[in-house]
Amino acid sequence: MAIAPAKVYGPAFSTAVSRVLACLIEKDVQFELIPVNMAKAEHKKPDYLKIQPFGQVPAFQDESTSLFESRAICRYICEKHHDKGYNGLYGTNPLAKASIDQWLEAEGQSFNPPSSVLVFQLAFAPRMKIKQDEKLIRQNEDKLSKLLDIYDKRLGESRFLAGEDFSLADLSHLPNAHYLVNATDRKELFTSRKNVERWWSEISNRDSWNKVVDMQKQK
Amino acid sequence: MAIAPAKVYGPAFSTAVSRVLACLIEKDVQFELIPVNMAKAEHKKPDYLKIQPFGQVPAFQDESTSLFESRAICRYICEKHHDKGYNGLYGTNPLAKASIDQWLEAEGQSFNPPSSVLVFQLAFAPRMKIKQDEKLIRQNEDKLSKLLDIYDKRLGESRFLAGEDFSLADLSHLPNAHYLVNATDRKELFTSRKNVERWWSEISNRDSWNKVVDMQKQK
Repeated sequence: MAIAPAKVYGPAFSTAVSRVLACLIEKDVQFELIPVNMAKAEHKKPDYLKIQPFGQVPAFQDESTSLFESRAICRYICEKHHDKGYNGLYGTNPLAKASIDQWLEAEGQSFNPPSSVLVFQLAFAPRMKIKQDEKLIRQNEDKLSKLLDIYDKRLGESRFLAGEDFSLADLSHLPNAHYLVNATDRKELFTSRKNVERWWSEISNRDSWNKVVDMQKQK
Repeated sequence: MAIAPAKVYGPAFSTAVSRVLACLIEKDVQFELIPVNMAKAEHKKPDYLKIQPFGQVPAFQDESTSLFESRAICRYICEKHHDKGYNGLYGTNPLAKASIDQWLEAEGQSFNPPSSVLVFQLAFAPRMKIKQDEKLIRQNEDKLSKLLDIYDKRLGESRFLAGEDFSLADLSHLPNAHYLVNATDRKELFTSRKNVERWWSEISNRDSWNKVVDMQKQK
């Protein structure tokens, strides 16, 4: 019996949605993207809040469960489909996994906050005709810059953040970094740092991420 | 051969350190707390930066590895010591674990940002003679308030956040919630909501957390 594809609710342009899409493609898991029109506030409607109580995207459903929070969804996909697709995505032993979790938390706690502010302020606010907050931009650019100095050192010691293999920790940086490099005038944050640039070039050229970018263009 | 106790670097009053301590006690894992004097900036010194490149606490070491990021350390402790202590802490099956990861991410992404701002502004800033930022306090109290409304609904449907059993997802809220309830005048955020109050009362009375609070008092 064929298993129904997993469902991902939300628009591909959302950074959190695209994190889950990249993971599904890496793991070669069939999925269906269900549109959620955020301009029409569909993510705040009662039916959607039943599967995502915070009114955010993405939400995820498969034949076993319903989940929210992109990094938790990615962990679940990797655990469940351990042997499908790229099996190093969440590590092949407990120590590798611990290192991936560590850098995935660094992304969620330290990289995501300043980079998501910058993505909103520099890439989305102008299109939405929202006034940019110069002070907020400066503060967060400074934070991200200091963080990327630490990343640059780390990436001088290992090929990827969690070790010698590409992992969920690297993947999780793609959505925000993609916008910063390609949709703002701040790409030097990444390209001016030798090891960060090498890393960014390698992870952003993976087939999985190129497919996600194509989905973002289709709208 | 006796195995050396795990090492946790940092002061017990730090919310991220106390998260790891509560986890170790729940899992009945022996540990040693290594002081890091943050007032003397010991967390920014080269030797410490070798084990914690971001210059934050905690750092963690055992006979197998060295890690940072409190939630990643907790996940590792639970995986490694699966059968020790309270074995439901990170779930006993994949779906339970996915639900715990989901609510652990909700804590890290949605609860921690406003609550840690409030803990700093309301509990620490006055002691450090730092001027409070009233606007920031109002913004973050509003955010936390809306979030706790969603928690209240969830906790009307299940005994704990991730389901019917206490888990790492609940535990991870203890450090910030403890300060908000006991060291600020905003405890109504928790006590004015029926289900949140029941949940808070239950999780904050666990032996593990009482032991951590004792460690915080010892200084």
